[in-house]
Amino acid sequence: MEQDELLKMLENVANGELSAENAMLRLKQQPFSDIGFAKVDNHRGLRQGAGEVIYGAGKTAQQICGIISAMLENGQERVLITRLPQETANEISVKYDIEYHENSGIAVLGGNKHADGIGKIVIATGGTSDIPVAEEAALTAEFLGNEVVRLYDVGVAGLHRLMAYLDVIMSATVIIAVAGMEGALASVVGGLADHPVIAVPTSVGYGASFGGVSALLSMLNSCASGVSVVNIDNGFGAAYQASMINHIRRK
Amino acid sequence: MEQDELLKMLENVANGELSAENAMLRLKQQPFSDIGFAKVDNHRGLRQGAGEVIYGAGKTAQQICGIISAMLENGQERVLITRLPQETANEISVKYDIEYHENSGIAVLGGNKHADGIGKIVIATGGTSDIPVAEEAALTAEFLGNEVVRLYDVGVAGLHRLMAYLDVIMSATVIIAVAGMEGALASVVGGLADHPVIAVPTSVGYGASFGGVSALLSMLNSCASGVSVVNIDNGFGAAYQASMINHIRRK
Amino acid sequence: MEQDELLKMLENVANGELSAENAMLRLKQQPFSDIGFAKVDNHRGLRQGAGEVIYGAGKTAQQICGIISAMLENGQERVLITRLPQETANEISVKYDIEYHENSGIAVLGGNKHADGIGKIVIATGGTSDIPVAEEAALTAEFLGNEVVRLYDVGVAGLHRLMAYLDVIMSATVIIAVAGMEGALASVVGGLADHPVIAVPTSVGYGASFGGVSALLSMLNSCASGVSVVNIDNGFGAAYQASMINHIRRK
Amino acid sequence: MEQDELLKMLENVANGELSAENAMLRLKQQPFSDIGFAKVDNHRGLRQGAGEVIYGAGKTAQQICGIISAMLENGQERVLITRLPQETANEISVKYDIEYHENSGIAVLGGNKHADGIGKIVIATGGTSDIPVAEEAALTAEFLGNEVVRLYDVGVAGLHRLMAYLDVIMSATVIIAVAGMEGALASVVGGLADHPVIAVPTSVGYGASFGGVSALLSMLNSCASGVSVVNIDNGFGAAYQASMINHIRRK
Amino acid sequence: MEQDELLKMLENVANGELSAENAMLRLKQQPFSDIGFAKVDNHRGLRQGAGEVIYGAGKTAQQICGIISAMLENGQERVLITRLPQETANEISVKYDIEYHENSGIAVLGGNKHADGIGKIVIATGGTSDIPVAEEAALTAEFLGNEVVRLYDVGVAGLHRLMAYLDVIMSATVIIAVAGMEGALASVVGGLADHPVIAVPTSVGYGASFGGVSALLSMLNSCASGVSVVNIDNGFGAAYQASMINHIRRK
Amino acid sequence: MEQDELLKMLENVANGELSAENAMLRLKQQPFSDIGFAKVDNHRGLRQGAGEVIYGAGKTAQQICGIISAMLENGQERVLITRLPQETANEISVKYDIEYHENSGIAVLGGNKHADGIGKIVIATGGTSDIPVAEEAALTAEFLGNEVVRLYDVGVAGLHRLMAYLDVIMSATVIIAVAGMEGALASVVGGLADHPVIAVPTSVGYGASFGGVSALLSMLNSCASGVSVVNIDNGFGAAYQASMINHIRRK
Amino acid sequence: MEQDELLKMLENVANGELSAENAMLRLKQQPFSDIGFAKVDNHRGLRQGAGEVIYGAGKTAQQICGIISAMLENGQERVLITRLPQETANEISVKYDIEYHENSGIAVLGGNKHADGIGKIVIATGGTSDIPVAEEAALTAEFLGNEVVRLYDVGVAGLHRLMAYLDVIMSATVIIAVAGMEGALASVVGGLADHPVIAVPTSVGYGASFGGVSALLSMLNSCASGVSVVNIDNGFGAAYQASMINHIRRK
Amino acid sequence: MEQDELLKMLENVANGELSAENAMLRLKQQPFSDIGFAKVDNHRGLRQGAGEVIYGAGKTAQQICGIISAMLENGQERVLITRLPQETANEISVKYDIEYHENSGIAVLGGNKHADGIGKIVIATGGTSDIPVAEEAALTAEFLGNEVVRLYDVGVAGLHRLMAYLDVIMSATVIIAVAGMEGALASVVGGLADHPVIAVPTSVGYGASFGGVSALLSMLNSCASGVSVVNIDNGFGAAYQASMINHIRRK
Repeated sequence: MEQDELLKMLENVANGELSAENAMLRLKQQPFSDIGFAKVDNHRGLRQGAGEVIYGAGKTAQQICGIISAMLENGQERVLITRLPQETANEISVKYDIEYHENSGIAVLGGNKHADGIGKIVIATGGTSDIPVAEEAALTAEFLGNEVVRLYDVGVAGLHRLMAYLDVIMSATVIIAVAGMEGALASVVGGLADHPVIAVPTSVGYGASFGGVSALLSMLNSCASGVSVVNIDNGFGAAYQASMINHIRRK
Repeated sequence: MEQDELLKMLENVANGELSAENAMLRLKQQPFSDIGFAKVDNHRGLRQGAGEVIYGAGKTAQQICGIISAMLENGQERVLITRLPQETANEISVKYDIEYHENSGIAVLGGNKHADGIGKIVIATGGTSDIPVAEEAALTAEFLGNEVVRLYDVGVAGLHRLMAYLDVIMSATVIIAVAGMEGALASVVGGLADHPVIAVPTSVGYGASFGGVSALLSMLNSCASGVSVVNIDNGFGAAYQASMINHIRRK
Repeated sequence: MEQDELLKMLENVANGELSAENAMLRLKQQPFSDIGFAKVDNHRGLRQGAGEVIYGAGKTAQQICGIISAMLENGQERVLITRLPQETANEISVKYDIEYHENSGIAVLGGNKHADGIGKIVIATGGTSDIPVAEEAALTAEFLGNEVVRLYDVGVAGLHRLMAYLDVIMSATVIIAVAGMEGALASVVGGLADHPVIAVPTSVGYGASFGGVSALLSMLNSCASGVSVVNIDNGFGAAYQASMINHIRRK
Repeated sequence: MEQDELLKMLENVANGELSAENAMLRLKQQPFSDIGFAKVDNHRGLRQGAGEVIYGAGKTAQQICGIISAMLENGQERVLITRLPQETANEISVKYDIEYHENSGIAVLGGNKHADGIGKIVIATGGTSDIPVAEEAALTAEFLGNEVVRLYDVGVAGLHRLMAYLDVIMSATVIIAVAGMEGALASVVGGLADHPVIAVPTSVGYGASFGGVSALLSMLNSCASGVSVVNIDNGFGAAYQASMINHIRRK
Repeated sequence: MEQDELLKMLENVANGELSAENAMLRLKQQPFSDIGFAKVDNHRGLRQGAGEVIYGAGKTAQQICGIISAMLENGQERVLITRLPQETANEISVKYDIEYHENSGIAVLGGNKHADGIGKIVIATGGTSDIPVAEEAALTAEFLGNEVVRLYDVGVAGLHRLMAYLDVIMSATVIIAVAGMEGALASVVGGLADHPVIAVPTSVGYGASFGGVSALLSMLNSCASGVSVVNIDNGFGAAYQASMINHIRRK
Repeated sequence: MEQDELLKMLENVANGELSAENAMLRLKQQPFSDIGFAKVDNHRGLRQGAGEVIYGAGKTAQQICGIISAMLENGQERVLITRLPQETANEISVKYDIEYHENSGIAVLGGNKHADGIGKIVIATGGTSDIPVAEEAALTAEFLGNEVVRLYDVGVAGLHRLMAYLDVIMSATVIIAVAGMEGALASVVGGLADHPVIAVPTSVGYGASFGGVSALLSMLNSCASGVSVVNIDNGFGAAYQASMINHIRRK
Repeated sequence: MEQDELLKMLENVANGELSAENAMLRLKQQPFSDIGFAKVDNHRGLRQGAGEVIYGAGKTAQQICGIISAMLENGQERVLITRLPQETANEISVKYDIEYHENSGIAVLGGNKHADGIGKIVIATGGTSDIPVAEEAALTAEFLGNEVVRLYDVGVAGLHRLMAYLDVIMSATVIIAVAGMEGALASVVGGLADHPVIAVPTSVGYGASFGGVSALLSMLNSCASGVSVVNIDNGFGAAYQASMINHIRRK
Repeated sequence: MEQDELLKMLENVANGELSAENAMLRLKQQPFSDIGFAKVDNHRGLRQGAGEVIYGAGKTAQQICGIISAMLENGQERVLITRLPQETANEISVKYDIEYHENSGIAVLGGNKHADGIGKIVIATGGTSDIPVAEEAALTAEFLGNEVVRLYDVGVAGLHRLMAYLDVIMSATVIIAVAGMEGALASVVGGLADHPVIAVPTSVGYGASFGGVSALLSMLNSCASGVSVVNIDNGFGAAYQASMINHIRRK
């Protein structure tokens, strides 16, 4: 149950659409469901503002279906699965109606949340090969209720391509900069923008790119202020934090 | 000139306190001042919402004074200097009235900006030895106009210490988690919070901590969503981004 | 021959069930059998309290059968094979009656030793993907005569899942903490427990997890006292030491 | 308050030496004392069987005295300080009566606990240069109530030196193997012993020893079963776990 | 003897200013002088177009004076010494009339060669702290007969500073891009220029800059074509190659 | 449009073969074409002297055809594709008439530019296994209008093989030294030549060659002056810079 | 032509079995044969005492046959091919009569040289999985004219296995110690032997063995004197040097 | 007691100069002397052909004197101390008559052994800065009874310097190649020589030389056969093995 759903449920109690008893029943559910191979976190929606997400890599279709089932039973209505291989997706789709994106390995069940963030999340990539990671970020951000602007193949070796979209960069609430090789995109964008930049190094490159380490180090050492970094190829993580920022509010 | 100052200047023109000619004069200043060894960025305040900051390490007192002078001439009223050694601070204080914090190497000229963020920035550390880096973050955040809550020595080896401050963690808009050694603080806090966590690995530790690399890797691989990372010991960078997040607004 | 078997043999001599001549014959066996490609250690049971174990990776079914044969000839009654591929297991099972666990690659011949340890060994994992390594540890510990409690998917990103099992953790004699990514589980468990924690980093993760190096470093730098570490994915090694601890006795 | 002290206190209540009121007062103390720069863990003795230890590196004499003071006020009677520089030790000794060991940087206040372990802890080193780390381990183990046997300079390049002490190795409950350079001592001892070996890599060596990394990797890859590893130069950590093992008991 | 000097000598023979006998004498000199601790390469000027350079680090003033003496005896008229500490420079200047640059550790004896290259070498730095390395490059290039344009503190975090000097960049024959931290300057300059860019990573930075490794990797992975890289802080090497390029000619 | 093409077009306007209107039309084309997954850089020929090159790895045949189409539409007449797998090349050749070199993965559309450089580019390899990388360099250099001399299998373990070709080395304008394993070729060639050497480390080798890292480090630390380095296996990058050097001219 | 063959040829000239003209013809052969993709070193036999060896990895059967052909034409009678895949070996054996060893990838043409070394080369391995590398060494040593003693699976975790063969170790002229994992075998053997030990780290192991790096570092840091090291899995290199040592003679 | 001394003692018994009783007394000495902080190996001379050597780094003058005293008492007549700081050497020389070499940190007590090897050991360095390591090797080799030829500053950047000494290289029984930076000397010498080359990487260099790692990797990957490697800066180890090779004999 996400925070929005909780609020709605309480309003339903208030206006009589839901009896207090049934509401209590739903609230009394255990904070997690122990299904043997996994302990599904049922309160994450309440605690973190977004329901549990399934990391699909290395899980069988059977395991994932078990987790989905536990989630649905506990009132979660929408599910995001990341790093899901095509084959596993096919097996799951027999049982559940998921929307699967092959390029990024993202699957969505129950559709995206309504975009209700403060502003827009701009996702920029250095090259064409960075697009799968960027799409993992974009689809995650949309699932979590954000308006996303895609700005792909604007690497610093052809600065005029980036400069042509200065207005897009300036209009963002948060920017996710996705780049492999030397990862300079994060620094250049970070120097231009007045809002947070989350940098995602990608494993694109060869030789001394060391599977994304070169881009990672480059981004960690960015001479531009306001840039933070997530793990190599972690489009999901960048989008998750970007969504948090885009939904920030006073407590 | 920061964005606030620009707004104020325009209002002054509007209400007649400043002539259009003088306003134009100030706006016509070059976007940077070339003082030989440095090209001082005069428009960063406009572009990024905060004036240029001086990275003090490896600069002579004379160089720093030159940069301060160029900044003041271009209308910047407050200056932050980071990583400033005690001795250099002493030399500078002969000429400029700076407030120097020895523990963190931070110097402030012209005082902090009024705290006008969305909420509070909580800065937590794993241990006592992480405090200098945490203070670099705290003083930077205060300089940039944020209310800061310090939560020091709450490392995960004694979970009850962290749990005792759950309400503080929950009340934050952004959390900066500062930790060395195995850096697990970021993951645990990230799992508890529903707002962005910026992790700062510190060089605290010995042996296989490799000067902060162990904590850095740990934080990059955090199993908690919503955690991003900055360079080892980079309290300034974390605070800079945290302040951006805490001042987020629709465009 | 393990230490228990030696004791039993001597008792049999004492009560006349075994003649002194036959006992001597068994004891006169060479300390190792040279079978060309391997020198099978026959005295390890006496010397270390557990007979030789076969590391199955990279060995042919024929080689493994040869080693088993040499072991059985020298009086060893139970054999553990680790890292055994499915295919090789199939070939071996034609000749020997082994119990094979596909998930962990463990095969057992002759059944487990009776559980005679001081207390229980608790094996905890951070996530579902760490289970194969945890099972390698669990099956090894059971083979060596230990009661095992499995506590899977209790990673620190959802602390309440771990906290719900505090009594299980407190009831252990030794804990084996199995985790990939940032490996924070070891530190958190280490801070809660008053008995030894053996940490097993796993190669679960991607990007800057570097095949388990991130978790390994994290565990080596644990801020909790009482945590030691074994090689990445080395569930067997952790269980072997845990069993030694669980069978500790005054000499 | 350590577990032994708790037991004694309850017995004192039972036999009338302590009033129930005073006992309750002592138990009602907060689980930690917040003294600003540190949150001293008062319940660690109860939780983990040994009171909090002070990691002296990077702390001022004033900070350490503050922590000692908080510990004493909460009923802890004995304090161990590790990695304490000579100069800081001198300053502390003005206020507290500590026994300081310069070679290992260990300071003890209130004397060692009575040796009440299951058996003996043997601490072996590869060379003379490893002795400071070995002494950190030895003094820690003695502080925590263990009988310690020192076996120094028995590296594998002169095997007969090690073999001459086989009986000592065999008589141990736990062995701590301390070695730099190639760290082979752990494997050789691990192959000889039938009890746990905790390996401590040291930063002794030059060139490709990389400050202890070579020994660390060697120990993690030990071909002997029953060997676990702690951080480079972490004599304290090895002794802490060894003491836990030497005090193991059924729950 | 450099190639220019050889040509001049032969012309002198042709016009009678030098007897054939004396010319032969000079040419018959050995290709290197063995002065015990060093074998001074006398033909490098002929072979490579520039006389031997003295790498000053780790050499005593006495050793350097010995090498200078051997060079002068063999007809070399100008000497460049790199990485020369102030103190050693002082000792040498007692005997030889050297021009010493403290900031870069460069010393020149006999003055610079006349600037006779194809065009200009532009040397750009990301920040103020990169200047010592840039000066090592600039002084080396001038010594070798090149016109040098210095463009310091134009890092990519403030792109407008770099853009303001586009004409300077475009006017170069070769560019040397000197930068630490994330080293993005090389890629951005490489994307703008139509002539070779030689990138020099510097050890400026902290934490995950790893003494220049981050900048080095970044530059090796540059997404801009036409960028090659030299060792960290190797301003001399970059200038040496840049001078070769600036003096290229058909054979 | 490359610089040569621009010049030719202007001459055509001058001599009436092209109307001013049509010339303007071609010049008014956008500096890049946005085709969704890529932003094709149309002005790179003007800016850098060579049209955009397609990096084929990880792109589909469809994507590459899209980019080729955009290039041709914008007046580029010749296209170079690097790192193109055989299968993708087959698909592309259905639509475009490319010349494909399987060994190096290079494809050329529209033929090579006329060789108009200052002199010759010599490409030397240490062994036979380095040839694919050397061919990537050779074919790129020929595409860009250079005369290339191939000198393969002249590694330093048999110096006389290299010495037999001293005249070839001496006749070059630029040398590209391609070597794996210990990469010593670059230093030896660098010591012999009086023109720039661009070193290309290759991933040839095993064990501690670490996929080319050993050769890379070796080349970066070359004791010979005048050697710069590109990424591991980056024959294209070396040739691109070599071509720039071979076409250097005064501005 | 190897040194032995040269001697024999000169003797044949002396005793009239070979005319001076024919001898001269053979000696006048070029020092290497240029066959396009390779420059076969014909004088290596003379220079180094052993004819050129073919490194088979990455070469086609056609290339290898070309090199063999060039060698035979230049009077070399025996050829060693290393790292030869089964399939390539099959193709070659159609044309040449090679003896192929699948386990080690070694192929021999023309048989081994008569064993004429000073003494015996002992080749020891830590485990069964190290045998392929050991066989590469053993077959190379036999090809080069050495008596070889194989001592497999004598790792230090079961010291008595090694001790049982002390006489074999003592009888060697050179020992090659082949081991993966922690590579401690080299140190233990090095401490026992009074002749050179050449250590070969193998890529056997998992996790923190890092493909042999752990064993490599261990061996480089051996506390035993008289141990040198070759590349990971380089059985050939170890045997080549061992053979040189076993054939040492005064000049 | 070294092997030579044992032989002499037995001859003295044979010719009546030593009584059998006294000989027995000397032989009955323990294989090592336990002096607390060290276990001095008295039989290493017998076992390995050279008495124990003292590694001076990190030992006090008092400790070293204690070890010398134990050695002398056990009949060793000559002692080598390596890596001895000047100050410690001064303290020792008060008590013992040592010959100290400041440049290499070598001290010799009792003079060198008579040079009785098979041939000469040639020690070559790449540059002047490698001389201290080369001298450690040279003095060790002389101590162990070898004729040494020094060939310093013959790095591959000026090949003619090395070529001028081809006869010296060819006359060696063993070559020790000492080089930092890219360490190419080992490969070039290895390609020229027909006897073993032991390569010693040095920590000379800066930036990406990583304290000798670059040279180490280069040497491990040498394309020349017959090259083995010791630890960075380990001149002693190279000389120790070279001496073993130079004294090889049939058993």
